[in-house]
Amino acid sequence: MIQKYSIGIDIGGTNTVYGIVNTRGDIVSKGSMSTTISDNVIEYTKLLGRAIKEMMRRADISPKRVVGVGIGAPCANFTTGVIEAATDLPWPSPIPLKDLMEKELELPVRVTNDANAATIGEMYYGSARGMANFLMITLGTGVGSGIVCNGQLLTGSRGFAGELGHCSVREGRGRLCGCGRKDCLQNYASAKGVVLTALDMMDENQDIPSLMRDITRENLTAKDVYEAALKGDTLALRTFEYTGEVLGRSCADFASFSDPEAIILFGGVAGAFEFIYPAMRRAMEENILHLYRDRIRILRSGLEASEAAVLGASALVWLPGKAS
Amino acid sequence: MIQKYSIGIDIGGTNTVYGIVNTRGDIVSKGSMSTTISDNVIEYTKLLGRAIKEMMRRADISPKRVVGVGIGAPCANFTTGVIEAATDLPWPSPIPLKDLMEKELELPVRVTNDANAATIGEMYYGSARGMANFLMITLGTGVGSGIVCNGQLLTGSRGFAGELGHCSVREGRGRLCGCGRKDCLQNYASAKGVVLTALDMMDENQDIPSLMRDITRENLTAKDVYEAALKGDTLALRTFEYTGEVLGRSCADFASFSDPEAIILFGGVAGAFEFIYPAMRRAMEENILHLYRDRIRILRSGLEASEAAVLGASALVWLPGKAS
Repeated sequence: MIQKYSIGIDIGGTNTVYGIVNTRGDIVSKGSMSTTISDNVIEYTKLLGRAIKEMMRRADISPKRVVGVGIGAPCANFTTGVIEAATDLPWPSPIPLKDLMEKELELPVRVTNDANAATIGEMYYGSARGMANFLMITLGTGVGSGIVCNGQLLTGSRGFAGELGHCSVREGRGRLCGCGRKDCLQNYASAKGVVLTALDMMDENQDIPSLMRDITRENLTAKDVYEAALKGDTLALRTFEYTGEVLGRSCADFASFSDPEAIILFGGVAGAFEFIYPAMRRAMEENILHLYRDRIRILRSGLEASEAAVLGASALVWLPGKAS
Repeated sequence: MIQKYSIGIDIGGTNTVYGIVNTRGDIVSKGSMSTTISDNVIEYTKLLGRAIKEMMRRADISPKRVVGVGIGAPCANFTTGVIEAATDLPWPSPIPLKDLMEKELELPVRVTNDANAATIGEMYYGSARGMANFLMITLGTGVGSGIVCNGQLLTGSRGFAGELGHCSVREGRGRLCGCGRKDCLQNYASAKGVVLTALDMMDENQDIPSLMRDITRENLTAKDVYEAALKGDTLALRTFEYTGEVLGRSCADFASFSDPEAIILFGGVAGAFEFIYPAMRRAMEENILHLYRDRIRILRSGLEASEAAVLGASALVWLPGKAS
């Protein structure tokens, strides 16, 4: 049987990475270009299309063996194929990304946002392999999510399902979110949320020494908090404990929605899984409805961070059903 | 073409009602029996099976024209076909309801809980006709829910999806829920929740007269609050306003999960829709993520209360896919 391939593209604010993926989930060829190579999106898609065709030629893979192209991009809508309102891309929205890339590559294209792409990657190649019902929560610059029910990615009536990072946190501290509201989960479980919690911890515990006090407030990063935690720093450990508690309480409510088999954590902050997990598990079980107690697994992503974006985007091609 | 039928059965704590439904959603024949007719569930299903066969004979509808049987019952699990842990039925759980009734009727049987049955009824015959993505919230003795995404009823990994009545309310008053936790939505938006709010309103506003003060605290019902509101009673009106606010804030978070086209209110308390709706709409829009703002309809159920249970159960038969 002839090996089939899919192409995955991840469009970030700075870089665009892409690769050819075989059906086992191996990236057989990859490349990248600057997302800011042109401030004209049509010019950008032309250059991207040319780079991908060149990659196929070099890898000696004919377009006939490529089933389709999947693209993960900020605010990209699976249902419409359009980037709706991205603030961190160099072009004005809306951008008809699916149509533009289908024209360049003459292959079927599906698009979705970064969190959904990671979710699909996890389902096909990562920790959620074989699961038909799970939640993926991406803890990065923001908090994104992807929801799989009955083996399908939840898209909702207009493609905007799965914004769990913007569910409100019950015991909020009044943190203002970029969306204009207060106390979204994102303000507690993102990299920035971790930093805000660390600052609160230091303010509220003046008597407790901390390695984090050696760094100015403006320069403290989630990575600094993680490194302090690795050295046993009390306030850094408490910061991740609190992050886990907030996540656990939120996930207890999320369970009531879709009765998932597992909740999977992905993204930079999930790198601190060892420090977040115990408190998250405890808070989730303490706050969850009895029907779900002790039945939902909390897992960390099973994908290499450097490959997840391309793998996830490429796996969009294998989703059943039709997009836009 | 020969007219096809489905049979709907609603098993409540006191009464069991059933009917034969045509494909347009007309109940062409109906009947009822006491749920407590026997404390042996096998005996009960035998009697129920006999009553339903008798109904088909009287209506001159041959079993060959009946596509299947749908049953709504407390804690019935669509995925397993079993009543898992019902506290208000006269028989010990678990009850293999699907198997028992298939044996009696020799027809395919599907079961689900009351809220899901109502949801499916709404999708086929009510306010959600033609919608592929909506939430149904049943405001009755408790608060139940049913979630439809991509035209499918969300069941989750073990059949327990859609317990939105047990999501926690952000600004809670410490009300203890029957599930053992505090401040579930159910404690605010159920009939009992409305009464608790009315009592709080009277306690916190001693200076404001109210018709509700003529009734003893123990005897006050949600219906009393509704009747007072109809007469313009300030505290009764504020009670429903608060109920609407809590519902609206909760629904703002629910939107982030499944991006629904509409939220449909059903059940006794939804009878006060006129008093709940304005505050619910306002609170939902004020607290919702911009992606969903002004895009989600709030509707009341489109089914006759007396027919909804049987219609909803019967419509289970028309769901695509397989149950248990």
